[in-house]
Amino acid sequence: MKERTITLDHGSGGRATHELVREVFARAFDNAFLGQMNDSAVLQVPAGRIAMSTDSYVVDPVVFPGGNIGSLAVHGTINDLAMSGARPLYLTAGFVLEEGLSLALLEEIVEAMARAARDAQVAVVAGDTKVVPKGKADKIFINTAGVGVVPEGLELGGQYARPGDVVLINGTIGDHGMAILCTREGIAMEGEIQSDSAALHDLVAELLEACPQVRVLRDPTRGGVATTLNEIARQSEVGIRLFEEALPIRDDVAGACELLGLDPLYVANEGKVLAIVPRSVAEKALDVLRGHPLGRDARLIGEVTDRDPGRVVLCTRIGGHRLLDMLRGEQLPRIC
Amino acid sequence: MKERTITLDHGSGGRATHELVREVFARAFDNAFLGQMNDSAVLQVPAGRIAMSTDSYVVDPVVFPGGNIGSLAVHGTINDLAMSGARPLYLTAGFVLEEGLSLALLEEIVEAMARAARDAQVAVVAGDTKVVPKGKADKIFINTAGVGVVPEGLELGGQYARPGDVVLINGTIGDHGMAILCTREGIAMEGEIQSDSAALHDLVAELLEACPQVRVLRDPTRGGVATTLNEIARQSEVGIRLFEEALPIRDDVAGACELLGLDPLYVANEGKVLAIVPRSVAEKALDVLRGHPLGRDARLIGEVTDRDPGRVVLCTRIGGHRLLDMLRGEQLPRIC
Repeated sequence: MKERTITLDHGSGGRATHELVREVFARAFDNAFLGQMNDSAVLQVPAGRIAMSTDSYVVDPVVFPGGNIGSLAVHGTINDLAMSGARPLYLTAGFVLEEGLSLALLEEIVEAMARAARDAQVAVVAGDTKVVPKGKADKIFINTAGVGVVPEGLELGGQYARPGDVVLINGTIGDHGMAILCTREGIAMEGEIQSDSAALHDLVAELLEACPQVRVLRDPTRGGVATTLNEIARQSEVGIRLFEEALPIRDDVAGACELLGLDPLYVANEGKVLAIVPRSVAEKALDVLRGHPLGRDARLIGEVTDRDPGRVVLCTRIGGHRLLDMLRGEQLPRIC
Repeated sequence: MKERTITLDHGSGGRATHELVREVFARAFDNAFLGQMNDSAVLQVPAGRIAMSTDSYVVDPVVFPGGNIGSLAVHGTINDLAMSGARPLYLTAGFVLEEGLSLALLEEIVEAMARAARDAQVAVVAGDTKVVPKGKADKIFINTAGVGVVPEGLELGGQYARPGDVVLINGTIGDHGMAILCTREGIAMEGEIQSDSAALHDLVAELLEACPQVRVLRDPTRGGVATTLNEIARQSEVGIRLFEEALPIRDDVAGACELLGLDPLYVANEGKVLAIVPRSVAEKALDVLRGHPLGRDARLIGEVTDRDPGRVVLCTRIGGHRLLDMLRGEQLPRIC
């Protein structure tokens, strides 16, 4: 039997597009907003501040241990909203499909998206599908944009780190990037490295509820922990010291990094949050994080200082200091 | 001198990404929200209903008479919001760039986006850039998602057309699609066919202010006027009759369609709105449309009936009737 594939017809805006929307997208994302089938979805939001974010996903391979491009596209944008402290409400989904894409693969991806959205209690309210001729894209690219509601009085941002604060992370470093890379390069470690791709908004809500003093939340995706902390160090004009011996890194991730000559501090994560909090609430914050399934391996990994403003320094196991700059060059293309 | 181009580094999330964001995107889209440089933008919205929409743009060629993929990406999503009667407020922009893309071309596109957004008084508040290896995308794909505010009491939708209503359009049919196609195929008509790409929210606001009785607004993009009216006929379970002699079509567009064997009723528009209104307000609505620069050629082109529910019928110049189905097959790939 011939495998059903995406054709240029599916992007025409005509009959085939309508069938695809009805049979694949509307079925998976089933909700009243999409059901309106108008040019935009009309939604109710409470008065106040909203957060808005977007990300395009071009990960290669599109299916990997721990998820696929669809679940990643939901988690990633939810997490960007959560980093503002927002409760994510609505997502849009834009698809660019390559002619010849397997319809079964598209369905698998869309179902994973829908499941991730349902699990996160977020509705996919509007979508769009374009098809480009074979060779003009690589299987599937997905854009998600999201809207969430920011609780009254909350003020988080990369500019709020202060000397004396500490740096927390909710778990192990480098899992997503190494899961992608090992799959792509066909590297088999003992056991398979799983992506950490996950929606962090619940964890973040619990943290902010218990510790409203949190100053900065940011997810260390592309560029990894080192690049993300550099961004914060510059925005806040502070120095950040990372303690090498405190960094939580899985043995298999560390092994794969060594094999490929990569530094896990520059490898992407998709289910991790860096939280900068006053030292006085660090213990409480760690307790809250560790009480959540996505924070069991939470650690205090660094501190904010007034030395070396704008810079991140690694305090090594043997007592040395190493400057951690932003990622230079392309370490890992198409990681998300 | 070697032309500067996009490299994989620009998508790394590291130093090169930050430079690109600062020098190209942040400079062009300059506003306080983007300036926050956090994972999502935090925005103020009035209480009530918001409209949310998304579209990906893959048009080929990326520059065409009357615009480029950047201005198109702004106009298109603004128009989707306007079709709900919403006042567009905020856009996000997600870029997928092909390694090797000319930096000068990217700047030209981003500047056109920024100009289109400024002219429409809409802010681009969040963005994302991915780079894929050469041959894995075609130059540049852009996704825009948008949020707007829907005025109290307004209720528009494809399901509200009623027998006795009439169909209005704000101007000529098929301009965008034929501008793209003539450019792509190197067809020179007398004078160049210009895309009609434009932001329609001002025109729509004036129309709704004067005629709150408007039932349906929809922009006939991919699939053209015929496909869009089919959608409405199905949603409202009514018949729609189009009057061939009333259709506004430019001579050069008609000529190019004939040359290429295309029916202008299936060709995409990017600055047109179909308005379905009670017959009693048709004259007033036409007056309002004609008083706006984007509605000078507005016409009454059809009527809603209780015959043939779910179908669109063309009443031809010679007194015949022709069923206009949704677009079948891919008439014009990558038109938007």
